[in-house]
Amino acid sequence: MKIIARIRTDFPSKFAIPRQSGLLESLESRIEFEKEFENPDYVRGIEDFSHLWLLWCFSENESKGSSPTVRPPRLGGNTRVGVFATRSPFRPNPIGLSCVKLLRVEREGSRAVLVVSGADLMDGTPIYDIKPYLPISDLRPDARGGFSDEHADDSLAVEFPAELLHLLPEEKRKAAVGILAQDPRPSYHNDPDRIYGFSFAGFEIRFSVKEGRAVVQAVEKI
Amino acid sequence: MKIIARIRTDFPSKFAIPRQSGLLESLESRIEFEKEFENPDYVRGIEDFSHLWLLWCFSENESKGSSPTVRPPRLGGNTRVGVFATRSPFRPNPIGLSCVKLLRVEREGSRAVLVVSGADLMDGTPIYDIKPYLPISDLRPDARGGFSDEHADDSLAVEFPAELLHLLPEEKRKAAVGILAQDPRPSYHNDPDRIYGFSFAGFEIRFSVKEGRAVVQAVEKI
Repeated sequence: MKIIARIRTDFPSKFAIPRQSGLLESLESRIEFEKEFENPDYVRGIEDFSHLWLLWCFSENESKGSSPTVRPPRLGGNTRVGVFATRSPFRPNPIGLSCVKLLRVEREGSRAVLVVSGADLMDGTPIYDIKPYLPISDLRPDARGGFSDEHADDSLAVEFPAELLHLLPEEKRKAAVGILAQDPRPSYHNDPDRIYGFSFAGFEIRFSVKEGRAVVQAVEKI
Repeated sequence: MKIIARIRTDFPSKFAIPRQSGLLESLESRIEFEKEFENPDYVRGIEDFSHLWLLWCFSENESKGSSPTVRPPRLGGNTRVGVFATRSPFRPNPIGLSCVKLLRVEREGSRAVLVVSGADLMDGTPIYDIKPYLPISDLRPDARGGFSDEHADDSLAVEFPAELLHLLPEEKRKAAVGILAQDPRPSYHNDPDRIYGFSFAGFEIRFSVKEGRAVVQAVEKI
């Protein structure tokens, strides 16, 4: 498997990355092609498509191996489900599948860069393939999503004091609030007195969660 | 990359396979797990999902290598488009992505077999991964599909004489008509006097095409 590109996102670690792609359209990322694939011909005509699939490497999970079943965080961490019935990273072949929105194609010298939104990838993640989203085959309005449907609406209210929010660059604020609304605590945690933190866009954001409400306590430049 | 399963379809060769998944729901296939992954635990809970993604190997195309651009058959074969703007099999990493409908999970002795519809794969194709289709991230009602939208309605009328159609097993007839409607001629062919043929479900089906009409000429058991 060749690495064709790497993605540049605002997440230096896995913590607080959205659980699936497309949940946070306010997140922008850049797909930078590797030397061998930087010829803009590789993406000729890609602007005709609004959405793209990324096939990428779960590069952080190699050591864990795979078991036939996993315990999805959204099921509370106690229910075992077959790995092929989940999008878990702990699978026989560590390949992720994400749908992103194509915002624009930029040029950086001689190479093309794809600017996309909605990616659920860590900064630097290796990309193996990019394919256009084809509504004719990929859009399935009648699809049922099992437990992912039932937990689609789990979200927190967010209290982000204005003086803290304004420490972030304006174009990052909406995404930061969105990340908090998606409850970025580690799975199965529920301690109202604990201060959690995550890194995003060069800032450390600290927050607590009480009664379905995320309250931001501090924002610090890293 | 480990092969986790192989798919059993009615297509012994690439000829006449639908151009994308989901175009022919009447096509049924069976996904048979390899020995290492035959433990039914691997698919525990998969029945909760109506659709699945298959990541699979373009096993027939290894020799061709890849160029930055390809010429999609649906654009008449003369227009060059970047490989990452197409679903062409001739790409840096030969991985295909298909969405199929999960009809049921069967047992064969101790192993689970997934019966699916709408696959666009050749018989015996190696499968690398199976993931559930998650509407929350995979269903994009606002997606635009570029040239694939414009050519979504290219199809042929089909004339399949009853005495020939009845040579096929009843459960294969609908799919056979569907294959013909999708114009299974090799790309760029348009010779009204030529007899074309394809193998499907153990039969050789021969037909001609004139003025947007596929006319079946012969059906023979192979």
